[in-house]
Amino acid sequence: MVRCVRRRTWSGLIVTTLLDRLLGVRRTTEALCEGLSAEDCQLQSMDDASPVKWHLAHTTWFFETFVLQPGLAGYRSPDPAYKVLFNSYYVGVGQRHPRPQRGLLSRPSLAEVRAYRQHVDQHLAQWLRPGADPALVALAELGLHHEQQHQELILTDLKHHFSCNPLQPAYRAAAAVPPREPAPLRLLPFEGGLVEIGHAGSGFAFDNELPRHKVWLAPFELADRLVTQSEYAAFIADGGYQRPELWLSEGWDVCQRQQWQAPLYWQGGPRWQAFTLAGLQPLEPDAPVCHLSYYEADAYARWAGARLPTETEWEHAAESAGDAAWQAAGALLDDARFHPAPARPGNGLKQLFGDGWEWTASAYLPYPGYRPAEGAVGEYNGKFMINQMVLRGGSCATPRSHLRASYRNFFPAQARWQFTALRLARS
Amino acid sequence: MVRCVRRRTWSGLIVTTLLDRLLGVRRTTEALCEGLSAEDCQLQSMDDASPVKWHLAHTTWFFETFVLQPGLAGYRSPDPAYKVLFNSYYVGVGQRHPRPQRGLLSRPSLAEVRAYRQHVDQHLAQWLRPGADPALVALAELGLHHEQQHQELILTDLKHHFSCNPLQPAYRAAAAVPPREPAPLRLLPFEGGLVEIGHAGSGFAFDNELPRHKVWLAPFELADRLVTQSEYAAFIADGGYQRPELWLSEGWDVCQRQQWQAPLYWQGGPRWQAFTLAGLQPLEPDAPVCHLSYYEADAYARWAGARLPTETEWEHAAESAGDAAWQAAGALLDDARFHPAPARPGNGLKQLFGDGWEWTASAYLPYPGYRPAEGAVGEYNGKFMINQMVLRGGSCATPRSHLRASYRNFFPAQARWQFTALRLARS
Amino acid sequence: MVRCVRRRTWSGLIVTTLLDRLLGVRRTTEALCEGLSAEDCQLQSMDDASPVKWHLAHTTWFFETFVLQPGLAGYRSPDPAYKVLFNSYYVGVGQRHPRPQRGLLSRPSLAEVRAYRQHVDQHLAQWLRPGADPALVALAELGLHHEQQHQELILTDLKHHFSCNPLQPAYRAAAAVPPREPAPLRLLPFEGGLVEIGHAGSGFAFDNELPRHKVWLAPFELADRLVTQSEYAAFIADGGYQRPELWLSEGWDVCQRQQWQAPLYWQGGPRWQAFTLAGLQPLEPDAPVCHLSYYEADAYARWAGARLPTETEWEHAAESAGDAAWQAAGALLDDARFHPAPARPGNGLKQLFGDGWEWTASAYLPYPGYRPAEGAVGEYNGKFMINQMVLRGGSCATPRSHLRASYRNFFPAQARWQFTALRLARS
Amino acid sequence: MVRCVRRRTWSGLIVTTLLDRLLGVRRTTEALCEGLSAEDCQLQSMDDASPVKWHLAHTTWFFETFVLQPGLAGYRSPDPAYKVLFNSYYVGVGQRHPRPQRGLLSRPSLAEVRAYRQHVDQHLAQWLRPGADPALVALAELGLHHEQQHQELILTDLKHHFSCNPLQPAYRAAAAVPPREPAPLRLLPFEGGLVEIGHAGSGFAFDNELPRHKVWLAPFELADRLVTQSEYAAFIADGGYQRPELWLSEGWDVCQRQQWQAPLYWQGGPRWQAFTLAGLQPLEPDAPVCHLSYYEADAYARWAGARLPTETEWEHAAESAGDAAWQAAGALLDDARFHPAPARPGNGLKQLFGDGWEWTASAYLPYPGYRPAEGAVGEYNGKFMINQMVLRGGSCATPRSHLRASYRNFFPAQARWQFTALRLARS
Repeated sequence: MVRCVRRRTWSGLIVTTLLDRLLGVRRTTEALCEGLSAEDCQLQSMDDASPVKWHLAHTTWFFETFVLQPGLAGYRSPDPAYKVLFNSYYVGVGQRHPRPQRGLLSRPSLAEVRAYRQHVDQHLAQWLRPGADPALVALAELGLHHEQQHQELILTDLKHHFSCNPLQPAYRAAAAVPPREPAPLRLLPFEGGLVEIGHAGSGFAFDNELPRHKVWLAPFELADRLVTQSEYAAFIADGGYQRPELWLSEGWDVCQRQQWQAPLYWQGGPRWQAFTLAGLQPLEPDAPVCHLSYYEADAYARWAGARLPTETEWEHAAESAGDAAWQAAGALLDDARFHPAPARPGNGLKQLFGDGWEWTASAYLPYPGYRPAEGAVGEYNGKFMINQMVLRGGSCATPRSHLRASYRNFFPAQARWQFTALRLARS
Repeated sequence: MVRCVRRRTWSGLIVTTLLDRLLGVRRTTEALCEGLSAEDCQLQSMDDASPVKWHLAHTTWFFETFVLQPGLAGYRSPDPAYKVLFNSYYVGVGQRHPRPQRGLLSRPSLAEVRAYRQHVDQHLAQWLRPGADPALVALAELGLHHEQQHQELILTDLKHHFSCNPLQPAYRAAAAVPPREPAPLRLLPFEGGLVEIGHAGSGFAFDNELPRHKVWLAPFELADRLVTQSEYAAFIADGGYQRPELWLSEGWDVCQRQQWQAPLYWQGGPRWQAFTLAGLQPLEPDAPVCHLSYYEADAYARWAGARLPTETEWEHAAESAGDAAWQAAGALLDDARFHPAPARPGNGLKQLFGDGWEWTASAYLPYPGYRPAEGAVGEYNGKFMINQMVLRGGSCATPRSHLRASYRNFFPAQARWQFTALRLARS
Repeated sequence: MVRCVRRRTWSGLIVTTLLDRLLGVRRTTEALCEGLSAEDCQLQSMDDASPVKWHLAHTTWFFETFVLQPGLAGYRSPDPAYKVLFNSYYVGVGQRHPRPQRGLLSRPSLAEVRAYRQHVDQHLAQWLRPGADPALVALAELGLHHEQQHQELILTDLKHHFSCNPLQPAYRAAAAVPPREPAPLRLLPFEGGLVEIGHAGSGFAFDNELPRHKVWLAPFELADRLVTQSEYAAFIADGGYQRPELWLSEGWDVCQRQQWQAPLYWQGGPRWQAFTLAGLQPLEPDAPVCHLSYYEADAYARWAGARLPTETEWEHAAESAGDAAWQAAGALLDDARFHPAPARPGNGLKQLFGDGWEWTASAYLPYPGYRPAEGAVGEYNGKFMINQMVLRGGSCATPRSHLRASYRNFFPAQARWQFTALRLARS
Repeated sequence: MVRCVRRRTWSGLIVTTLLDRLLGVRRTTEALCEGLSAEDCQLQSMDDASPVKWHLAHTTWFFETFVLQPGLAGYRSPDPAYKVLFNSYYVGVGQRHPRPQRGLLSRPSLAEVRAYRQHVDQHLAQWLRPGADPALVALAELGLHHEQQHQELILTDLKHHFSCNPLQPAYRAAAAVPPREPAPLRLLPFEGGLVEIGHAGSGFAFDNELPRHKVWLAPFELADRLVTQSEYAAFIADGGYQRPELWLSEGWDVCQRQQWQAPLYWQGGPRWQAFTLAGLQPLEPDAPVCHLSYYEADAYARWAGARLPTETEWEHAAESAGDAAWQAAGALLDDARFHPAPARPGNGLKQLFGDGWEWTASAYLPYPGYRPAEGAVGEYNGKFMINQMVLRGGSCATPRSHLRASYRNFFPAQARWQFTALRLARS
């Protein structure tokens, strides 16, 4: 991270703008929680998924710990216990409350956490002025992007929490499905050669997107849209979950052990319905299938006579598409749809951004020459570079301003509670 | 249970009195929850301990399911889903929401559960009148005692939930310790012979207290009070948790695996403190030690050159003591102390009732001639008669009106989150 | 144990006889292993079941540790490592090789273990002469009975080991089934009253059979024979494994989790076959069902409108029957049948001894006044007195000379790999 | 695999040579088992490590299943049950005996397995003649390389089995350590650029080494030898196992959970000894450290201010070194040392081949354009391409003729029972 920021000079205007953006992101987070009760915000349905209240507090803790404590003289936390309670995984900062026990914190209450947010926001506004220490300003910008990541997690975690309640509660009313004609999937050709990937330019990027570097790319083809729910249902109907030859060995073991028969949240086959943030809903045949593990995405691709793209292929294609990729984007957090939508019409690559994170065939590893940031924020990305696969492109729960072509998301192969989708490729 | 009730004729007066008692018990349950937030009431810190909100709903479900549905024409539940959500273990009633997921029910809200209670109370009041079906009246009385059991569980479960929060919240302010002189422990002799135990008389009893039956009892001695915290601290200081020869083999395994060093909730030895319902507190040397597993109680007794009493010995001693046992009782729920207290002065048996449940050396098994009740409530007791030990006497969380000399409580040997204590005996 | 022996004076004749008996038992153990390869003798299919080789060594270790080391000046073990390798659970003796890793000892070889046995036998013969320390002679006698227990375990453990091999190997050829007429089950009445149970007389007994003591017994009925395989098959056909109302709650959980559909070793229903020590065999309809957990025995009894007997009832009935019980005994180790047989004809109680261990409704707990032996052998019995149920009467793998009416065997409720059977009772 | 073979024409001479090589490899396997008892050959100390007897049978099964059954008319297996017993993971071939239960097969005996080997060898000799189906000949060659892989596993598995025996048995006597001067580690520079990796030429290769393809490589430095035991001991002494900041997050969790303090088989620090195939031995300070997980190798590299090489860097360096790499190779199976040795003197890259498998920073994924073989042998490699890291170069247990620069081995990051070592690199 530090490398992307390079202690550049922050002009007064940029700093002021950053404050506006930052407070805007903070408000968006709170807006996402409207309508949720204190009880809803405390749910923790599995170790991987945190309570909404914890997300609200942890993102605040991030600013307090990395920006206000070092940067604002005399700053005091509302409660010194928060230092431990809301630390996620920063060993350099000290002790951490155990992750599986985040749902056991009825105290502080949601009201107290909201007050904590206000307290930190006020002090951020007091501190973030022209002349502030540029290194800390860079950390404040990191905090903004960090909070956007948690906006997505608030939605995906809440979806999992709610899915465990037999009442199948709805977070929001269902959005209308855009009336779009289903289009046949087409594979678009790319020439390859010596290309560059990785973040370029002066904007923000996470340290794992750096450095920009050369990669040799063989020719390939990339599907123009994501795999749809009806296409995936055909895979199921063709015995996709009963045929080990379609699966990676480890994937087949997981599939058997967990008795998977369909994507997470699909119920009641063969006339499938899906639990969504709008409660239980019928399938949308032309919308992308999501909530797939890597194993399922990989098995589908094998069944379809194709494969998953590498992250280099994906990024090269997205760079090549340029603005067109954004014009053909899928649903994003800003659309408040909270569910993928059918692809827009058109000839180019659709849904590169939005709708669902696309599993790639690339393991999450450092780029050549990668160096993590100094200090505790150096733990942000690098220490997770093992046994995870890269996902690209963002989902219906990702803020538009959070994404870019070089963005690398990563999850273990068995993860299914994110909006994870797939796009086919071929050599 | 049905056998204890014997479809006796319920006079109008008795029925009216029952309604008063029942509504009184229901109000007591709600009074116990005063000061708890909706977030507090949703906590579930382990599979064995249910959320307070769930207790509030389940006790209500019991009346709805076993009394109102069969007995009150036209009765309708606020939500048909409650039938599954709030069923604990009655297979005869149908499906059950999985026990470990009770803490995942943010919906219905605490406010809705309170409304559910009112709804059922109003209909109980409408139905419980002279002339009501005597079999159902008996079930209503069972429901009253059932709810008293859950009053105790609300406190013990809440204590466990709160203990997982590093803030160590207090449920109530600490009560003053009665200023009592520590008294040396004395062993009182009993002659034994052919005695009777089991419930006698026309009052309420659970089916597992029946039938009253003869038992041959060898002479024995019984301690006049419970083992104190300072006595137990001496056991720890003498290496009690490091000496396998003091322990049952299985107990030693559990002790090692769970790394026990002291009773549950004791912290920071050798200058121990204890987490209590009043938050973290210093030890009270003359008050009884509690939150012991059977293994620990048994190991202490062996270390002390004694043993645990059998349930027959205990019940025979309690029957022999008669009213004096009640006059020398320890703290009960009615005292709102929520913590054991030092024994009262005097020569007889003290703390037989209240302060802490006393582990006995008796496995929880049916009495000769035992028959469970007909129907789903027959699942109340009998189906748990394996791998549990009997506890006697009640605790500081048990309502006085809930107890009697023949009362049999039972828990697995490793359970520690109840107010479980020990009294020594000798052959 | 020491209490049963009471440092009595051992006459020269008795000592000589003891040596003969002891060496005879040792030879029987080895005879049981004839035909087994070194590979067979090393199998360990689960933590509870030890390799045959380990049994051969451990029983030898017992004599070495408790008799020869303290009693025979200058005695030296073939290998000092055996002290740890072949200690089962005697904490007082020191470290122990982990139980689940007993199957990982290819060294010492079977040949070395056999040499170890000879070495110890020779020294026992040298030591066990008139004038030997009576306390140690008593321990030698304990060692004899200990070895008989392991004779049974050699067979039951081997059966389990072999059952994991898809080749389903046979230990011995199948014995012919005695041609007996199936007899209807009859319940024989007993009056009860104040009876005595526990070991009496001067013969050997384990400490857990002592002291003999009075028990009050209500009138009861006891089945004249064990439940047969065809009777049990009717229970299965009637949905016995699908009806939770027949089961203890914990038993139902185990049954579901382990997907039990029939007794251990039954395969291929509804035309069941059973894996036996003679390989895969058809059912023998009139022979007793065995390899039942307590949960299954209890569920069957409930289905049959009966219950399991208590150990007091069983022992009182066996004492009452006297020699007749032995004349109507089932198969014992001495019969080399290694499988239960149909009951003999006749009016009295049959199969009290032999065929299958009978689950009783009694938890394994100390008798009033029980005291374990001094020293490490005090760990023999007492430390297992929790969460186990008592079984009575011996099985087709128990030596006849090992049994008596007061003999108490014990296993956890879920154990199924012993020859565990059931006899019905009724109040 | 099929692609590497390309149904090329096998001349008579080549086929005859193949038979010689094949039978030679088969004899080597048996020679490795000399001195092991039938009991030794049955040990299975963990799920991942198979019994030696199973390896002997499974490699034989491979020829029987993929070559003799389809290729030799009238061929009959000694026992049809072997088809299931000795199938490892080929779903396309049918059922498999569960991997964790391989150690429970006392039958067939070691003698029977040896006879099985002879039986198959004789039929291979009968079948493998000029004119044999070229596709099957290719599979026979695959079987040869497959058996070489199992030669290494026989040694690494046996080492683990023996390590669980407190007697710490030795497989072979310790070889003398070559008297070599310790040399300081030097980092050799490489220019990078557009390079090619992957198998080239007409020799044998596994399918995962294909196709040869271009990769862009940034400049890098590579250490001239492996990290030594004394260097690794300095890492331990510097708190390497207590400092989370040195570790990947997942690695730290594993390290804590498994309580790692040193490489597998190191005992008794800080004066470490190591369990080896020659029993317990002192460290050899200048010999390479091995039995490291990926997590440990990665943590060491971070501590040393370096990183692990990618597989492309490694292969490019090995290709560049050419024959010199072989002249400076470490111990191989052919040396019968069974333990790594200090690096030879000299200026170039040492120990690229032999001594220890080198963890690379590359995940095990398909090369661009990879296609698995048709049929069941297509399961050989491709289905394991997830959550494994690539290792390069072979170890002291790898046959020399089995290795080449393009060879890709792979194991999960936590695996430690192979001879896994590390070489440093730097960007």
